Amino acid sequence: MIAPLEELLSALSRLPGIGRRSAERIAFFLLAKPEEGRRLAAALAGLDQVTRCPQCGNFATEGLCPICRDPERDRSTICIVARPWEIAHLEKTGEYRGLYHVLGGLISPGQKVGPEDLAIEGLLSRVRAGGVREVILALEPKLEGDLTAMHLLRALKPLGVQVTQLAQGVPVGRDLESADELTLGRALKGRRAL
Amino acid sequence: MIAPLEELLSALSRLPGIGRRSAERIAFFLLAKPEEGRRLAAALAGLDQVTRCPQCGNFATEGLCPICRDPERDRSTICIVARPWEIAHLEKTGEYRGLYHVLGGLISPGQKVGPEDLAIEGLLSRVRAGGVREVILALEPKLEGDLTAMHLLRALKPLGVQVTQLAQGVPVGRDLESADELTLGRALKGRRAL
Repeated sequence: MIAPLEELLSALSRLPGIGRRSAERIAFFLLAKPEEGRRLAAALAGLDQVTRCPQCGNFATEGLCPICRDPERDRSTICIVARPWEIAHLEKTGEYRGLYHVLGGLISPGQKVGPEDLAIEGLLSRVRAGGVREVILALEPKLEGDLTAMHLLRALKPLGVQVTQLAQGVPVGRDLESADELTLGRALKGRRAL
Repeated sequence: MIAPLEELLSALSRLPGIGRRSAERIAFFLLAKPEEGRRLAAALAGLDQVTRCPQCGNFATEGLCPICRDPERDRSTICIVARPWEIAHLEKTGEYRGLYHVLGGLISPGQKVGPEDLAIEGLLSRVRAGGVREVILALEPKLEGDLTAMHLLRALKPLGVQVTQLAQGVPVGRDLESADELTLGRALKGRRAL
């Protein structure tokens, strides 16, 4: 096998969910259709433009993200997620019109992630700035999500804001991304006060 | 969703075997690990160096492919394949030490591919040049493969070369790539004279 092909197979095999056989299928597709390879390369180069929203931590291209910038969104509600891609998933439900806040992870004693490693101060500043009535915790119903929820509840309660969490429609013990839109939409509707 | 992410998701979704969900998983992986995206982009750029071997049609980087250039290969045997990536697959069996010839397709009345569209003249020149004792047909055991085999047999017989084809260990009616190494290796060993 020639070097450029080996390098492509090896780069493709490192992607999640792509085994050696899938990598071969993709590589031969790209060799047969060079325009698709150029399209993918251009899209990869475009990732350099991706920044983070200085307010909520969502993906953005410059300044605030499209959600924080949208005047139609309800600024009295902030939905907390661990990772920025969970926002896209919640948005697909069409059930939520508020803002978001990305923690950047979850408290995990095993992986030595403490509250100080997460964007919690930024969240508290946003709440202290006023106008926020409800904070929705959209965290995974596993140990780390529960630990983080407890910590946030303790930090937010003194600020006089209502803290709710997604209803247990979210499948227990699985990633938030694995929930379908309907389940996530129901979980948002059925959120309960803590 | 911001534009650079949408473009990446769309480029990834066009790859074979990659649905929207897999594309999201890969995109978020690449956002979290920019060095992997750069590695993939570099590998894609490397495809520009991929040419075809002027002798056999295999993938090459400059001049002859590694197999045609290898002095250890048996130059008295040529194995015929439809597509260049089938060579890598046959090589993995470790059962073959001869050379190859890529036709660039198969005769297909339905898709209006005739013998003149395939690299058959190049093959006949190689055989006419002398030193070739056996031509192995490693073509898919479907209509197109059989039509092509019949045509090649007619063209090669007058040149006094033995023509064999892979044993019917190759799963019938499926792509050559879907055969495992063991099956392909056995099919090579059990090839029979036509």
